[in-house]
Order: sequence, then structure tokens, then C-alpha cells
Amino acid sequence: MTRKLHLNAFLMGVGHHEAAWRHPRTEPARLTDVRHYQELARIAERGKLDSVFLADGVALHGNVRHNALGGLEPLTLLSALAAVTDHIGLIATVSTTYNEPFHVARKFASLDHISGGRAGWNIVTSAGEAEARNFGLERPAHADRYARATEFLEVTRKLWDSWEDDAIVGDRVGGHYADTGKIHAIEHAGEHFAVRGPLNTARSPQGHPLLVQAGSSEAGKEFAARHAEAVFTAQQTLAEGQEFYADLKRRLAAHGRRADELLVLPGISPIIGSTEREALRLEKELEDLIIPAYGLAQLSTMTGIELTEDALDRPLPDVSVETEGAQSRRKLVVDLARREGLTVRQLLGRLAGGRGHRVVAGTPEQIADQLQEWFLNEAADGFNIMPPILPGGLSDFVDYVVPELQVRGLFRYEYEARTLRGNYGLERPASRYAAPREVAVAR
Amino acid sequence: MTRKLHLNAFLMGVGHHEAAWRHPRTEPARLTDVRHYQELARIAERGKLDSVFLADGVALHGNVRHNALGGLEPLTLLSALAAVTDHIGLIATVSTTYNEPFHVARKFASLDHISGGRAGWNIVTSAGEAEARNFGLERPAHADRYARATEFLEVTRKLWDSWEDDAIVGDRVGGHYADTGKIHAIEHAGEHFAVRGPLNTARSPQGHPLLVQAGSSEAGKEFAARHAEAVFTAQQTLAEGQEFYADLKRRLAAHGRRADELLVLPGISPIIGSTEREALRLEKELEDLIIPAYGLAQLSTMTGIELTEDALDRPLPDVSVETEGAQSRRKLVVDLARREGLTVRQLLGRLAGGRGHRVVAGTPEQIADQLQEWFLNEAADGFNIMPPILPGGLSDFVDYVVPELQVRGLFRYEYEARTLRGNYGLERPASRYAAPREVAVAR
Ligand SMILES: Cc1cc2nc3c(=O)[nH]c(=O)nc-3n(C[C@H](O)[C@H](O)[C@H](O)COP(=O)(O)O)c2cc1C
Ligand SMILES: Cc1cc2nc3c(=O)[nH]c(=O)nc-3n(C[C@H](O)[C@H](O)[C@H](O)COP(=O)(O)O)c2cc1C
Repeated sequence: MTRKLHLNAFLMGVGHHEAAWRHPRTEPARLTDVRHYQELARIAERGKLDSVFLADGVALHGNVRHNALGGLEPLTLLSALAAVTDHIGLIATVSTTYNEPFHVARKFASLDHISGGRAGWNIVTSAGEAEARNFGLERPAHADRYARATEFLEVTRKLWDSWEDDAIVGDRVGGHYADTGKIHAIEHAGEHFAVRGPLNTARSPQGHPLLVQAGSSEAGKEFAARHAEAVFTAQQTLAEGQEFYADLKRRLAAHGRRADELLVLPGISPIIGSTEREALRLEKELEDLIIPAYGLAQLSTMTGIELTEDALDRPLPDVSVETEGAQSRRKLVVDLARREGLTVRQLLGRLAGGRGHRVVAGTPEQIADQLQEWFLNEAADGFNIMPPILPGGLSDFVDYVVPELQVRGLFRYEYEARTLRGNYGLERPASRYAAPREVAVAR
Repeated sequence: MTRKLHLNAFLMGVGHHEAAWRHPRTEPARLTDVRHYQELARIAERGKLDSVFLADGVALHGNVRHNALGGLEPLTLLSALAAVTDHIGLIATVSTTYNEPFHVARKFASLDHISGGRAGWNIVTSAGEAEARNFGLERPAHADRYARATEFLEVTRKLWDSWEDDAIVGDRVGGHYADTGKIHAIEHAGEHFAVRGPLNTARSPQGHPLLVQAGSSEAGKEFAARHAEAVFTAQQTLAEGQEFYADLKRRLAAHGRRADELLVLPGISPIIGSTEREALRLEKELEDLIIPAYGLAQLSTMTGIELTEDALDRPLPDVSVETEGAQSRRKLVVDLARREGLTVRQLLGRLAGGRGHRVVAGTPEQIADQLQEWFLNEAADGFNIMPPILPGGLSDFVDYVVPELQVRGLFRYEYEARTLRGNYGLERPASRYAAPREVAVAR
């Protein structure tokens, strides 16, 4: 089987561009309308994309005066999308810093049942300070967040394994519903969590949801190399992408994992036009709608320095790289400004489209060229597609870029499987509590 | 407007009878199949019922060897039901003892958006000890659980109010999305919680989900009288039902509330036959499928005394009434056994159908008589309908009992509203942060 691209539709309100809500091709009133997201999921499924992906935070991030914020919670939303789709994967972001593993394990098991095996979990550690304040806490240190994440994931995995695959007997006549020898208390007792188990939801179609990781700090990469099956990342240049890709794949071996057990999926925001001029016009339209005050506030949070309008036409001030927030994103932004000698205003323009993710404007062929280049040159196993405006940017991608990728033999014409793991080409994990089976020998 | 019944379909796996999974009219393999629940929701909506209601606990309760346990998580499930229905309310049980108010407020706001204003929250305090063990905790004392519940609800209400109704401006040309003067940090700092807010989901169609309470201890009733808009309760006799009803309605005044601001909804499990004989035969079929070991274990947990098979044909041993568990349910069970002089085996038979809720076998007319009697004699404003088997018991209720109630003028022919509050006849709460409006005076 030849290697194929994996593509997720990264959904964000009415588009990833921070001025999307002001563009005539969007309807910001649909931000809390489930039909908007159902339409997006159906478009993505029409394009045979692997999944729809929802980011999340547990605080109101950014200045809502100037952007369409305040949308829906991912897990409840994805259930409603499961109900109107059949094949597409459903990946929700849930933080390990402000949650309990029992609840998280159960909700993903439930979503996996509801979707027939299409659930995925983007495991994040919540870099923002505002989030801690909604839970009566101070934001834990970066290392502590990842330590908690590691134990958190261990507990959820045990819970998903707590019902073996064949635990349910279903003998109605004999009155024997389940084999309690195959439903296990997990008796987890660790530094952060003490959880007895078992889970009170039976083992789900995928066994475990697909496990995704999205932090690119040293701790984040180590976590990904040990545990994740896909990594979402922001990489600006091919060289950076290749370095990140090689780094992650190299780390896998140390944990006894094969290179194909982890997919590296950078984000990309494609600004699509039927001609290059049309694409550049759309890019310019969006740029003209940017409100500098909004981006300045975002950039201040990201870099940890207070930036005002006075700073706009000067270079980015010095920024320390050590931080307890999102380490990799801060580094990316500072590197970008330095490398290209950008003023703050120019930097804001570059960040407005994808918050640090790569933005590419062009024709469907040009977009396909970019994806192909990264894919064939070991910078990506696929991509998180971040349409600048929604639904238009997604339907343009599905209608014009996907066929181009299919013709080039880079992308599927039909889903290979009904589960997200199946379409990602990943195995279904066995329960750790199951007795090893005798291997049948073919004679 | 004449007073009308309110009816919820209390959904539980393949039926409320503990032997439902063994009955030929059920399919226990559908326990984790979303289509089973979607079918149930559609049946209930066809019958114009007010809502579907899902109970929940965060531990595997009961002996799964002998019962079909391990189903889906309510909030994820209800989102998937919202997607295939238009009018029916969606009430999920969520505990205040092992959750964080920010998450709970957000998920209900999200469900309320997704369903177009049909979300309800059954607020419980988790009486079981096993639940605490899944969160590294000892079960808090009864009074402490209710104290936490009170503050928890206060925080969620503030969060739901944190976006005023008219906070979203949506001025695309001017670049003004929301009026930040109408989105409020809640700055809650109490004994159990410190939450800054605002919520990161905009105010939902109902403002707050419908608030339901389901504990009938002294603390539970006080909580309900202060905060709840509906009370689910288990009452065995008309006299008990009347006493409970009068008690609750009386308490409302002390909190400045009108009697019609809280609906009292006892549970009832109707065993329906086209003749009385047929109903009794179904009851007997289910009784014959009971596994005493299962009920014994349940009763042991409920009463706090270890009961073995030896105890079956003797009266229930002495049970102390003070407990840190579910106070009102223990009292109900002990009273029932004493009042009717039941042996343990007989008591198990009585509990198998409805776990302490009233079970009534009969023709549609006889069932309607029972509902009418309680409704007209101030024992109920409506009922939680607990079909012994599902989906059959629910479709029988909808197809035969509902028309009988409609003909008698006791139940709606059409939904009055699109929201759950609307159908319950309850007001939409205003945001506490909104400036008082000038009242327009009609001239
Ligand atoms: C594509 C992508 C999506 C992300 N989505 C989220 C998100 O939804 N919520 C969140 O808290 N962090 C999100 N992150 C951030 C990281 O997961 C991580 O929490 C943060 O960057 C800190 O980790 P680091 O220091 O290892 O980079 C995302 C990152 C990437 C690359
Ligand atoms: C109809 C009904 C449904 C209930 N559903 C739940 C439930 O789903 N989960 C739960 O933990 N408790 C449930 N309860 C129990 C109570 O809400 C409460 O937690 C328990 O009875 C202890 O409160 P009490 O001591 O005030 O009775 C239910 C009670 C009734 C009457």
C-alpha cells in the first residue's frame, strides 16, 4: 500500500482568520448554531477527510469586543455531529490540567460508542493563565502540567481497558450478562490520582479513542513520542517542518515504537482562489478587516509582554523564551519575527491568518503542490486544514484541492474503514487486562 | 389555561425492570447503541412528552454479572438525541460532588444551544460510596454534599448569566462583535469554589437549563424549595405523595416563590396490557426473570446491611435510618417493608420494577386513572414515566395511555413551545447582571 495523506478539517467558528467574522462570506450569528457545524462535518465527509477537529480552552481567550468568540463545547458538539455523519473522525480537545480522568475516559468512551468508533482526543495541558482562574487554581508549572498529563493518560487508558472486549456474555436464559472476571477494578494510586474503577461504560469500538498531542515543547515532544498517535503542530518552513518531523520520529524508537505509529500533522491555512490573483485578493480582503487592537492583545498574551499601538511600527521587543505558558508557540512567533525582520504590525498580519500556523494563498494546484512537497519530503504525514473562512474555505478545499490530491495519488477516493483508527491506519489497542491469547498456527 | 400534566420519559437501558434485559421484548445488545436511544426519543416526541430524562452515576453500580449495565454518558448521549428531535426536552443527571461548576455550566449551555433550548439538569449529590473512589476521595457527609451543591449551583447560575442576552452586537462593519460591558467576570470566591468567569459560551436559548432536583431528604427538599423548578421523587402511596407534595409547595413561600414555580413529578412504572390479565402476565413474566442475588446486593447497598440468600424468607432486619447515603430512598424501602409486612424476597419483588418507585400494572385506562387521581388530588404535577421494558413499554404508553389522557383533557395534543421551559410553563430567567429595564407603560 502506498503511503497516503491524512487530512483533518480543523474547525473554528466561522473561520481561522481572526477577521473571518467580518468577511461577507461568513455568518457570525451561526457561531452557536449546531447546523453550521453539521454542515461543515458533512462537507468534510464529502471530501473523505479523516476527521473534523475542535480546539478548546476553558476560559474566554482573546478580546470578544473584536472577534466572534463564545462558541460551543467540543464533546457535546461532536456528539451532535456524530448523529449526522457516518465515516468522519471526531477529535475533541480536552485538557488534563483541569479535569478528572474518570469523566474524560467516560465521555470519550461514550462518544466512541455514539459515533461507531470515530472518537479522537487532542490531549492538551492548558497553557493559559485565565483557565486556572476558573478552577480556583494557579496555573501549574509547565513541567508539572505534563507530569499530570502523563499520569492522567495512564489512568484513562486503564479505564478504557477495564472492560475486556469479550466481557459481555449476554446469556439471557442463564441470567449471565457479563463475565465479572473480565471487568477489572484498576486500583490506580499515583501522585495525582487515586481511581478504583472499573469504568461504567463498556469498552468502545476503538478500544481507546485516537490519541493526539498538540504541544511542541521538549516536554510536549517527549509526551507525544511516548503516547500519541498523531501530533498537531505549527511549522512555518519546510526546513523547520523536516527538523520537527525527524526529531519526533527519532524519539519513537527509544520507546519501542515504529515510525508509522505516530502521524505528524502540521497545520496549514489555505487561501484558495481559482486564480492566484483571486486567492491574493481574498487574502487582502481579510487583511484589510484585521483590527490591530485584537492581534496586539493576543500577541501580548503569547509573548508575555504588554504591547500597545505605539509598538506597531517597530520590531518586536526582546522576549524571554523560558515561560510557563505555551513554550513552542512563543518560540515560533519570536523566530518568525526575527528571521524575517518583521515589525509588530507585519507580524500581526502574519499571525492573523493562522495564529502561527502556515498560511498559503494560491490556486488549488498550488495548494496541492505545497502539501505534496511537505508530504514527500518528510515534513508531514498529513495536515490539519485550517480554512480562513467557514464554510466557504472548507468547501473550496474539498471541491478543488481534494480532487487534485486524488488525481496525484496522494489521497483516498473512499474511506478505508468505519473507524478513525482504521482510516489513520492505526491498530486497535488490546486491553492490558486480557489474558494473552494462544496464537493459532496455520498448517 | 387549565392545568395540564407534565410527563417525562425516564430512559434506562432496555427498561427499568431489573430483569428487563432477559425479557424477549428487549435487545440488551442495544445498550450502547445510540440508535436505540434515538428511537426512544422519537417515540417520546411522537407522544408529545415534555422530556426524556437520563439518570447517572459515576461508578459501576450493581452487579453487572446479572444486569445490563455499562451504558452511555448522559450529556454526550443527549446531544446525539438533540440532533434527531425538535421539541422534546433533554434532561441529564450530573453530580455536584465530583465535578467543577465551570465544566458543568459550559456543557449545559452548549447542550441548550445545540438543542435550541431543550436542556435540563437533574442536580444530584451522589449518594454512593463507590463514586468517591473514582475521584480519590472519601464520600463527603450528606450535609456537606448539599452545602457544596448549593454553592455549585450558585456558581453555574452566575456563569450562565455572565453573558447578558444582548451582549452580542455583531457589527461587522464597525468591527464590534460584542459589548464587553455586558460580558461579566463573576469573581466568585466561596467556601468550595473560586471562579473568575465569564463563561466562554454565549448565553443559551433558555438562559439557564431547567433545574431539577431528585433527593427527598430534609436537606434535599430544602434545596429543591430554594432552587429547583422540578422535583423527581419516589412515592408509594397517594397519602405519601400528597404529604410530600404539600410539604414542598409549603416550603416555597418561605423563599418567596409561587407554588407553580416548582413541579412535583413522582416516578411511576406502568406495566401496560390491553387487558388487565395481559398486564399482569407481563408483570409475572418479568418477576419470573428476577435473579435474587442481584436484588439482594442492591438492597444491601441501599440499607447498609449485608443480606444473603438465607435472609430471603424472613422479614427485613432492623435498619438504622440515619445514613450518609441516600436518606430518602432508604427510608422509603424500610417503610414499605414494615407497612406491608414483607419478607425480603417479597420486598425484592416490589423493588425490582422501579427501585422504590411505584409500579402499576393495568390497562391504559387503569394507568390513566392512577395518573389522574394523583394529579387531581395534589400528589403530583406530572410524572416520570419509567417503562419496565424499552422500547416496547414506552411505545405502549405513548400509543395507548397518552391518547386516553388527551381525551380526558389532562395532556397536550401539541407542544406549546420549542423550549423545555416553555413546555413546562416556566419563565426564562433574566441575567442577574443586566441593568433593570424601564417598564413600558401602556397608555
Ligand atoms: C494545532 C494545535 C492545536 C492546539 N489546540 C489547543 C487547544 O485547543 N487548546 C489548548 O489548550 N492548547 C492547544 N494547543 C496548544 C498545546 O496543545 C499546548 O497545550 C501548548 O502549546 C503548550 O505546550 P507546549 O509548551 O508543549 O507547546 C494546540 C497546539 C497546536 C499546534
Ligand atoms: C427519580 C429520581 C432519580 C434519581 N436519579 C439519580 C441519579 O441519576 N443519580 C444519582 O446519583 N442520584 C439520583 N437520585 C438520587 C438523589 O438525587 C440523591 O442524590 C439521593 O437520593 C440522596 O439524596 P437524599 O438523601 O436527599 O434523598 C435520584 C432520585 C430520584 C427520586
